[in-house]
Amino acid sequence: MTAPLFEAIPNFSEGRDRGKISRIADAVRAVSGVRLLGLHSDPDHNRSVLTFAGEEDAVFSGAVVLAQACASELDLASQTGEHPRIGVLDVLPFVPLEGATMDDAVRLARRTAEILGSLGFPAFLYGAAATASYRRDLPDVRQAGYEGLAGRLQDPLWRPDYGPPALDPRKGAVAVGARPFLVAFNAFLDTDDVEVARAIARRVRESGGGLRAVRALGFAVGGKAQVSMNLIDLEQTPIPVALEAVRSAAAELGASVESTELVGLAPLAAILDTVRYYLGLRELGPDHVLETRLHEPPDA
Amino acid sequence: MTAPLFEAIPNFSEGRDRGKISRIADAVRAVSGVRLLGLHSDPDHNRSVLTFAGEEDAVFSGAVVLAQACASELDLASQTGEHPRIGVLDVLPFVPLEGATMDDAVRLARRTAEILGSLGFPAFLYGAAATASYRRDLPDVRQAGYEGLAGRLQDPLWRPDYGPPALDPRKGAVAVGARPFLVAFNAFLDTDDVEVARAIARRVRESGGGLRAVRALGFAVGGKAQVSMNLIDLEQTPIPVALEAVRSAAAELGASVESTELVGLAPLAAILDTVRYYLGLRELGPDHVLETRLHEPPDA
Repeated sequence: MTAPLFEAIPNFSEGRDRGKISRIADAVRAVSGVRLLGLHSDPDHNRSVLTFAGEEDAVFSGAVVLAQACASELDLASQTGEHPRIGVLDVLPFVPLEGATMDDAVRLARRTAEILGSLGFPAFLYGAAATASYRRDLPDVRQAGYEGLAGRLQDPLWRPDYGPPALDPRKGAVAVGARPFLVAFNAFLDTDDVEVARAIARRVRESGGGLRAVRALGFAVGGKAQVSMNLIDLEQTPIPVALEAVRSAAAELGASVESTELVGLAPLAAILDTVRYYLGLRELGPDHVLETRLHEPPDA
Repeated sequence: MTAPLFEAIPNFSEGRDRGKISRIADAVRAVSGVRLLGLHSDPDHNRSVLTFAGEEDAVFSGAVVLAQACASELDLASQTGEHPRIGVLDVLPFVPLEGATMDDAVRLARRTAEILGSLGFPAFLYGAAATASYRRDLPDVRQAGYEGLAGRLQDPLWRPDYGPPALDPRKGAVAVGARPFLVAFNAFLDTDDVEVARAIARRVRESGGGLRAVRALGFAVGGKAQVSMNLIDLEQTPIPVALEAVRSAAAELGASVESTELVGLAPLAAILDTVRYYLGLRELGPDHVLETRLHEPPDA
């Protein structure tokens, strides 16, 4: 039995400057016990998603180092991009992996938010780590971005959980959360009309009465309209169900999905669910995958 | 660097008697260094597929023990079933896995065929291990099953590569081969009319001018017509291409595919190809799979 593992999937507000992005990622990589699993930078959103994993103390240290690197490399006041954002280290979710429970991830999130607060970041807990139900959903925490949050900070209901109750315009605030594994999945349309992507997003997302545990926004990315989705609970809505809903909404609007993109990682179970769905397989588990079987420990 | 690994995927002619099947599988499992990866028994075909892997000497020993167990447990003369068969240990292919080449697998096949010959099994080499081009394709070797082979044995062109040039009616012959990884994939139709399955099989298989590297037969299994496919080179025809051909041929005949079944194992690459195909993903590699990344050795 190994120690419980956690994943952190911070989003930071720089997707263009390769030098800054590398220095931020390298600072995290240098932390002992941290395994860097992914780095996805999006110049249009001007935003990067870093994925790293490890045991609790390693992931905690990686998050602290990351916050310091974002504060020294980035300046929110001069940042522009498609995506709503509240800070240089914008969102910092923790996910329980092997051996860890959601309660463990909540404890890690709160411990991290506390130290980020002491470093001058107003820190808002969200997801399973939220301290009030109206702060549970990330979209509510970051509604209208930095500017919206700046206005809400005067409201006693929107005091940060940790840190100063005022925003430093260079670094902004940070949302620190605990949540299940999330799959970020984008569909590129055969049109450059971003309104089509927005209409599809409104139709498929939970907040529009669409699919449960699906968040969606429409963007223009690389000359194509893109429906950008977060599937926040794959047991409620798996990848193929989300994509087929987008395909069918697109068809009704005279558009179609040209290609898709998986941002970051997906659990093997989500990959196998997708195969099972499209092939109509009676069953398909990790035990059907050659590599899983070759490398698992021998029978006792 | 670990030693080269091989897989053996023997098919033996018993799919109904759980006691006999277990004793045969247990004999192989008991061989040191052998990892049993799968056992799939089909009562209709009255046939089982065993999958095991390991280093060369372990897989060789497993195959010898298997042949002896089949000879002592089974009697071909009293065996009946849907599938053409030539012996109790019917087909014994070897596949090169990590670190092994096809030449390595050919050497292992020939070494095994030689010792099975000395144990009284007429052994026919096929696939990459074949000693003549007309014996390369497994369907040619086992054409018309035991009865057909019994007739052909008088022909000097059909002398076995090893073993006696006459058939013991209790154990029959064995085809020993080397080949790339094969995926066995079955589609169940919404009809019990086996002729529909046979018509689809004729249309999609390579021998009928259909898809390259696809073998297909139509069967009646569990009250449903089934198109049973072997995809013998996934680079030429991946799983989704084969299934879509079956779906489209079925539609033309007024039928449809109700469900599918993967027999044995599939390599992760084939799983990811399937997801990429149906989702229209721009890219998807093992590095996108969480479990692959969590358990790989750390960066140097």
